[in-house]
Amino acid sequence: MRRLKATISYDGTSFSGYQVQPGERTVQLELENVLTKMHKGQMIRVTASGRTDSKVHATGQVIHFDTNLSIPVERYQKALNVQLPRDIRVLEVEEVSSDFHARFSVKGKRYRYIWNCEDVQSPFRRNYTIDTNGVKPDTNKMKDAANHILGTHDFSCFCAANTSVVDKVRTIHSLELEWHQEELHMVIEGNGFLYNMVRIIAGTLWEVGIGKRDPSNLKAVIESMDRNKAGKTAPPYGLYLEKVYY
Amino acid sequence: MRRLKATISYDGTSFSGYQVQPGERTVQLELENVLTKMHKGQMIRVTASGRTDSKVHATGQVIHFDTNLSIPVERYQKALNVQLPRDIRVLEVEEVSSDFHARFSVKGKRYRYIWNCEDVQSPFRRNYTIDTNGVKPDTNKMKDAANHILGTHDFSCFCAANTSVVDKVRTIHSLELEWHQEELHMVIEGNGFLYNMVRIIAGTLWEVGIGKRDPSNLKAVIESMDRNKAGKTAPPYGLYLEKVYY
Repeated sequence: MRRLKATISYDGTSFSGYQVQPGERTVQLELENVLTKMHKGQMIRVTASGRTDSKVHATGQVIHFDTNLSIPVERYQKALNVQLPRDIRVLEVEEVSSDFHARFSVKGKRYRYIWNCEDVQSPFRRNYTIDTNGVKPDTNKMKDAANHILGTHDFSCFCAANTSVVDKVRTIHSLELEWHQEELHMVIEGNGFLYNMVRIIAGTLWEVGIGKRDPSNLKAVIESMDRNKAGKTAPPYGLYLEKVYY
Repeated sequence: MRRLKATISYDGTSFSGYQVQPGERTVQLELENVLTKMHKGQMIRVTASGRTDSKVHATGQVIHFDTNLSIPVERYQKALNVQLPRDIRVLEVEEVSSDFHARFSVKGKRYRYIWNCEDVQSPFRRNYTIDTNGVKPDTNKMKDAANHILGTHDFSCFCAANTSVVDKVRTIHSLELEWHQEELHMVIEGNGFLYNMVRIIAGTLWEVGIGKRDPSNLKAVIESMDRNKAGKTAPPYGLYLEKVYY
């Protein structure tokens, strides 16, 4: 038995998220279907670094699975891509030791969130960016607010209410705001993220950017540990899981 | 009665082409539905510069329609975009004289065709570019072949068989091949294009680029006036109608 680690990319538009759910098309289901077929019907379970919600994209999701096939590891990528639907692509496959675990071995993650600030959003960007209807936020204010988020905090304020996680202390290593022509990217790295945390941070920083919330308010929001003090959860289709660190 | 000209963009992925067809979702149908609603049920007909096939995209299609509403012309763009599905966007609306005709007044068009030559095609590009499975064609050969296409010719060789057009003489003003990172763009301008002409040219130049056809062969293909001498019709989803000249 060998353990393989794969880095995958997917367009979340047509998926009900990553995780298997009865009756729904999910990324995990497509991966397990193809792997099970490759293993002649032997059910192969896939473990990811974490789930992503419906419509959320990934350019660097990581999974692992165990196999007793003797296919050389360098052949897996093509063998999987030939059978997978085209909205999932395997970017890399490598053999790892049996104590590697796609979820439990995670040391950190990087996410990207994209707003499209064109006067008229290109129809080609509708599933991949948030249409701001031409509104261009003040990124200096957003950067000031972001400084309060950096470092180690109890991030209860940025965690969806329906979660069972007890320890909500996480460390945010960096939070950058970058313009790419008329699109604003928020790139955030940390040692872990709570449920909906990136989208709630995006929604809160957006309110700062359009002047609805003062940058200094972020300090009080974090100290409150109260989800209701933060901004709205930004929509899922602007979000990309970009890299998982091990 | 005023005549309005609108420049529109659409993602062709979810359309059965531009032109109304019974039972199908088409761009024309969506535009006419919204305009008819704006005109309180009075059927408004839309005329485009030409139809585009199923899956073909547009970044600069042009339409015209007649209206007796007193809405200021500068209000039309937002009024239409609010009601249109997000895979169609109106980029500009202007009033034109009653002798302007979106189809009959056309002086020329520009199309773009895109091949994605990444080793593994990004899932985000699957509906917008042709996956070459990492094959990178020889663009010098393609440019040599393109030189035979420039100018005025009878282009019967590049016209789908099922057409009723009699005069197949057209003038190609320019045909450029440009790399944008790992994507190859063919940009072609001419005074008019026959049915499937750009896709047949793309398919033929592709065969030159991968060494299946000699660049000098293009001269014989054009002189033959025989569709069977040219290459395959390249897939629709790599094609963009980019600009219409009047």
